[in-house]
Amino acid sequence: MLSEKLKSIIREVPDFPKPGISFKDITPLLLHSELYLEIVEGLLSPFRDLKIDAVTAIESRGFLFGPAMANQLNVPFIPIRKAGKLPRTTLSASYALEYGEATIEVHAEDIKEGSHLLIHDDLLATGGTTLAATELISKSKAHVAGFSFIVELDFLEARQKLSHLGKCSSLLHY
Amino acid sequence: MLSEKLKSIIREVPDFPKPGISFKDITPLLLHSELYLEIVEGLLSPFRDLKIDAVTAIESRGFLFGPAMANQLNVPFIPIRKAGKLPRTTLSASYALEYGEATIEVHAEDIKEGSHLLIHDDLLATGGTTLAATELISKSKAHVAGFSFIVELDFLEARQKLSHLGKCSSLLHY
Repeated sequence: MLSEKLKSIIREVPDFPKPGISFKDITPLLLHSELYLEIVEGLLSPFRDLKIDAVTAIESRGFLFGPAMANQLNVPFIPIRKAGKLPRTTLSASYALEYGEATIEVHAEDIKEGSHLLIHDDLLATGGTTLAATELISKSKAHVAGFSFIVELDFLEARQKLSHLGKCSSLLHY
Repeated sequence: MLSEKLKSIIREVPDFPKPGISFKDITPLLLHSELYLEIVEGLLSPFRDLKIDAVTAIESRGFLFGPAMANQLNVPFIPIRKAGKLPRTTLSASYALEYGEATIEVHAEDIKEGSHLLIHDDLLATGGTTLAATELISKSKAHVAGFSFIVELDFLEARQKLSHLGKCSSLLHY
């Protein structure tokens, strides 16, 4: 099963970035090029029967699989980046961090009004970044087609915040 | 020709990130999913006759095409990230910025001694980041197979610093 295979490759790094956190390092998946398209297909298959006009993903690890997902669907890939990185006119949304807040942005003209976007990120933790991405789509008068993650940290219960907004899928769970 | 097609899609944004700089925004290329694999193949074709054991690329925009390049070659993709982002034991290299310096890192165990790596980034400007990536490969006792960029700013003459280290190719030039 794909999820078991991926779990055996993902590295859990204790106490990173700080004590008490067990970091799920997905980068070893990329060392297995034979799995790359299988992961991309796994990220897409729950959404194959939905209307998807574009895939969007969040800097930086979302960029590792997001463009290939869009390519498989023959739809545009729209990057969401940290504030100040995108040069054209942007929409922005902020989310709370443990101390302070962070802001993400998207090029305003990239998201078409009324379009349906699949949101991808490598990891669903508290859901703060994902909800901010949802806000960018909402500001563009577009729709969330769904949420596709590689890893979901079930104990943080972010799915409760997302599932009423669109279909939510993760390849594996901790 | 691919380079003309790409040049018509890339957006030049004046005075970003600061006055006097004409920023080359490659993100619109990703809105054209029909071009994605053509760009990936264009990034690889100059290196098809060389031994390449892995592709490495630099956070964040290098992640947009780097993993697909590795997948096409059936070799590992090794991410290079800003300092503090990679959780396992890292090697690091620093490069000068206008004020101060920046540090990039790679997971030490990812680069195999004696292997040949293709370095990718979206843009070759002064070459500072690329040279730091070369240093990471050198610290790993591995070899640079070549340098593959989408855009090269010829007037900054970075190619002079790279061409004795490996074959250097860019899809388009300004």
